[in-house]
Amino acid sequence: MEYKYLSKIKSPEDLRALDASVLPALAEEIRDKMIRTVSVSGGHLASNLGVVELTIALHRVFHSPEDKIVWDVGHQCYPHKLLTGRYDRFDTLRGPEGISGFTRRYESEHDIFSGGHSSVALSAAYGIAEANKLSGSKNYTVAVVGDGAFTGGMVYEALNNAGHSGKGTKLIVILNENEMSISKNVGSLAKYFATIRANPRYFRLKAKTENVLNHIPVIGRRLAKALFNLKTSLKNRIYKSTLFEDMGFRYIGPINGHSIPNLTDALLGAVEADYPVLLHITTVKGKGYELAEQNPEIFHGISAFNIETGEKKLSGVSFSDTFGAFLRNAAVNDKRICAVTAAMALGTGLEGFQKEFPKRFFDVGIAEQHAVTFAAGLARGGMLPVVAIYSTFLQRAYDQIIHDCAMQQLKIVFAVDRAGFVGDDGESHHGLFDAAFLNSIPDITVFAPANFEELESCLYQALYKAEGSVAVRYPRGVEPKLPTDYKYMGGGWQCYGDDAAEIALVTYGRCFAEAAAAKALLEEKGVRAKVVKLAQIKPVPKEAVKCAMGADRVYFFEEGQRFGGIGETFADKLFKYGYRGAYRNTGVEGQFAVQNTVAGLLKLYHLDAAGMADTVLKEIAL
Amino acid sequence: MEYKYLSKIKSPEDLRALDASVLPALAEEIRDKMIRTVSVSGGHLASNLGVVELTIALHRVFHSPEDKIVWDVGHQCYPHKLLTGRYDRFDTLRGPEGISGFTRRYESEHDIFSGGHSSVALSAAYGIAEANKLSGSKNYTVAVVGDGAFTGGMVYEALNNAGHSGKGTKLIVILNENEMSISKNVGSLAKYFATIRANPRYFRLKAKTENVLNHIPVIGRRLAKALFNLKTSLKNRIYKSTLFEDMGFRYIGPINGHSIPNLTDALLGAVEADYPVLLHITTVKGKGYELAEQNPEIFHGISAFNIETGEKKLSGVSFSDTFGAFLRNAAVNDKRICAVTAAMALGTGLEGFQKEFPKRFFDVGIAEQHAVTFAAGLARGGMLPVVAIYSTFLQRAYDQIIHDCAMQQLKIVFAVDRAGFVGDDGESHHGLFDAAFLNSIPDITVFAPANFEELESCLYQALYKAEGSVAVRYPRGVEPKLPTDYKYMGGGWQCYGDDAAEIALVTYGRCFAEAAAAKALLEEKGVRAKVVKLAQIKPVPKEAVKCAMGADRVYFFEEGQRFGGIGETFADKLFKYGYRGAYRNTGVEGQFAVQNTVAGLLKLYHLDAAGMADTVLKEIAL
Repeated sequence: MEYKYLSKIKSPEDLRALDASVLPALAEEIRDKMIRTVSVSGGHLASNLGVVELTIALHRVFHSPEDKIVWDVGHQCYPHKLLTGRYDRFDTLRGPEGISGFTRRYESEHDIFSGGHSSVALSAAYGIAEANKLSGSKNYTVAVVGDGAFTGGMVYEALNNAGHSGKGTKLIVILNENEMSISKNVGSLAKYFATIRANPRYFRLKAKTENVLNHIPVIGRRLAKALFNLKTSLKNRIYKSTLFEDMGFRYIGPINGHSIPNLTDALLGAVEADYPVLLHITTVKGKGYELAEQNPEIFHGISAFNIETGEKKLSGVSFSDTFGAFLRNAAVNDKRICAVTAAMALGTGLEGFQKEFPKRFFDVGIAEQHAVTFAAGLARGGMLPVVAIYSTFLQRAYDQIIHDCAMQQLKIVFAVDRAGFVGDDGESHHGLFDAAFLNSIPDITVFAPANFEELESCLYQALYKAEGSVAVRYPRGVEPKLPTDYKYMGGGWQCYGDDAAEIALVTYGRCFAEAAAAKALLEEKGVRAKVVKLAQIKPVPKEAVKCAMGADRVYFFEEGQRFGGIGETFADKLFKYGYRGAYRNTGVEGQFAVQNTVAGLLKLYHLDAAGMADTVLKEIAL
Repeated sequence: MEYKYLSKIKSPEDLRALDASVLPALAEEIRDKMIRTVSVSGGHLASNLGVVELTIALHRVFHSPEDKIVWDVGHQCYPHKLLTGRYDRFDTLRGPEGISGFTRRYESEHDIFSGGHSSVALSAAYGIAEANKLSGSKNYTVAVVGDGAFTGGMVYEALNNAGHSGKGTKLIVILNENEMSISKNVGSLAKYFATIRANPRYFRLKAKTENVLNHIPVIGRRLAKALFNLKTSLKNRIYKSTLFEDMGFRYIGPINGHSIPNLTDALLGAVEADYPVLLHITTVKGKGYELAEQNPEIFHGISAFNIETGEKKLSGVSFSDTFGAFLRNAAVNDKRICAVTAAMALGTGLEGFQKEFPKRFFDVGIAEQHAVTFAAGLARGGMLPVVAIYSTFLQRAYDQIIHDCAMQQLKIVFAVDRAGFVGDDGESHHGLFDAAFLNSIPDITVFAPANFEELESCLYQALYKAEGSVAVRYPRGVEPKLPTDYKYMGGGWQCYGDDAAEIALVTYGRCFAEAAAAKALLEEKGVRAKVVKLAQIKPVPKEAVKCAMGADRVYFFEEGQRFGGIGETFADKLFKYGYRGAYRNTGVEGQFAVQNTVAGLLKLYHLDAAGMADTVLKEIAL
């Protein structure tokens, strides 16, 4: 489909050449393009619909890539991508070798910082701004940060540091308040932002400014900007009271984030300040697509859907759903069970728990560090907390798991969702580190179930059998198909196949289904193999190592980072128990795996059945 | 030495039985005991001197351990230890099997949460408070947090979450403001706290309240408390303006933190609120010991010293000093070099750099996450940032190293100080995780020099030879004595000894000195050994593995966690290259190493020369 304006924009320069009067039409085209694309590819929609006008205003006022726009998380970068030369390839969004759903440095010089995790943009942007100061550059750095990201502590660390820098720091932080982060925004800050927003003195200023700005010709804009600044600084002198001013920033806002003229003038005003500025804008998540406006949480991150009805393609019951249902049941009988999530109630399957046990449900915001230590406190107070966090985000709480959980010998259960490849979100979101980083921590037990039944059993063991902190890690999505002659018997490991086989495939989690299929493939070729399946990957059960040692050749397959992973621990243990045969370890070896389907990634890293069988056969043929 | 009051206090109950009039004398005894003890043992002094009155007030108002006092970091817990049954053993402070310098759960029921790392107390305390709510307990939870810790983002995550909880949450946060965290407190917050402190309306309230409270008999205290509350709530209604109130807390303060009556009444007022309260007190770091009051930074953490003169026993040039001097020199010639530290300018040896290059020096506060991503921003802006952080604190930034440095392929140099055992600070401070967690991250190079010369060479390689993010890790303290016939030739590894020896000892960093000595011990027994010394531990140099494989038996010695560590990677590589001999890996195996001297710890874990030689000889004798 051809768009009158959008199809012709190859760079921000083309955007700046447009007459201001056609920008609303362009905004509509961008929305249309995004809705059509995401309805097929899946992705973040509501957040992107909310920042169309902001993105247009930013790329007209600033000159990217000399001026640097850093998008926090990057789940709102689709309009930015459409306006910076990626319209033609936009249909490949989130597909293999396609456009990323987040900013990626290798994709465009306009993607200043690769995104994915929350609350980092201001830190990065302030670093760039200080570098500019040192090198004498006059370019501006802009960080766009959603209100949800303000629940993450890094933002305050950065505000505290950057607010101190004062005059000459060409840094603008845009607080994009849409009253809705991934989950309904929680905590005092949400209330506080609402207070600022509802405070008539701010609205009054805004209304007046808007009136002035909307009724002057372009030629008078410079004057209007000066007026705007005067008013802003006057207001600041009289009502010096926002948290941001306390942190050393000049505050401008709230500004209607869907008015391109207002945004443009506010940005010009911010530039004029030559000082760290916090520009507070208000937007509507899902803006311009009624279904998304009404259900922003569902349309935050969505799989392919029907544009007319909003209906999603059915994707089946997930590990997350199974976890959520199990925990709800467990909590009926055990009043000590609490659930803690970091802004991911929906994603981790905890919505039912939240409804049924609101007092024992804690959504702490995008604050994984606090989530973990808060859970440690709950445990210290006699509760049995279960912390559900995606593998990739749990990286944030590595120190807290060490220092506040394991070192305290407290019983906390970590439900590590999205462990392993996640597919189309790519390198920032794969759960490839948790097995390795949990492996390094003393006094912690880690389970890696292969299907729903095992997930439930492992959660039960985690809650009632294991001592100290326990993690149960499981993949994104639906249940893999296990062989019908396999049955989990409880415990830390089991041997699938003939114990006397000369080839041992060792693996855990989702890859067991692949290993079982690989065993069948090998047997077709006349090679006898057994699968040593670990349900508990830390500590690695000694008997599992002994079982593997019965074979002449041992192959470990790990859907995770090879270095520091369980496969290396297994190698070390093989030596420890005197194994003298061959050992081959396969994992993601020192790479950031990029976006692809999960099946595509398993294949790429030789972790699918065919890849496993090939690895064995190739060596036997030698 | 016997103290009139302190010697008789076996528990907080004994403290509460004392007449209020003798408390100032008790405070003086506590100070005397601490100064005498720390002058011998070393430890944190200034922070502990600052909270003597606070600790007395807390243990008189609250009933520990039912009421739970959580000390942030724990570097101010000495008075607490002296008042909770540990006076008799206090002379063993920080020694092998002695009293810990931080709170330790296993040491006393009054140590609610084991400490060491900053900014976690509020998260833990809020968890306990919510657990109390759920279980119907009426007990109080108090978190004592220094102003320095407020530069750490976790505090805001917790404030945001806890401030939201409202009525019935029996939680008191004490902000202990002493205008001095570990380094001079930095950033906007320090300014902001000073503003509150200097704000006459607060002082006026305080002065009046003090006057009232100081001149009423004990019998009238309840009345005074009510009056205090009335005034506080009135003030809050009129001047609802502190950041803490914005975050949902009731604010009381600032209170003179050296007045036991004022503190007592403020605490009683806070209890009355039945709501999350932030009690802001001001104290003087080093209070009561003039030398410490004048040099609080030096007396924050100090080794043994002379009480009269404050002079420290000479400890010699450290790795930190060597790093600092190197970087200062490098920065003269390379204008891109910036230094970033998280409140540890002194500890990391960066004081000289700070003085010479103030514009290129960034102390971001106790904010490791921001420090790392800010450095990534500096790199993105064309600078060459060097981030100096202790190994144990770098754990906080694991996700940022992955997501904002390595994944961005940015050149950032991490100077990882205090890698390996740190000695008397114990389990919360040993740098035993960095080799393992850095090992798991793709696209990063890690060096581990064995002496000063190597440190300088590795830093040079990190700055100018290696691509992408690079870490250089080195131990606390002075240079180990290397054999005279050893000379670092640059590069990633080298063989020390006869290449044809049948025994290979593989190691890196400080342990090389031990391994070289072990080699000599073995040769005395007629066993030929070579040492494969790694200077680069990630990636492990292939040729080093090949060299080790020439031996019949390979022994890896690692001053770090065994699981996920370099020794396991080495095992995996031995298999990869077809080694079929014996391999024995020695490290800290799934434990939190406790406090001891560094020599004592090396011995305990068989990482000293004798232990290494024994490990080899024991097996050869088999």
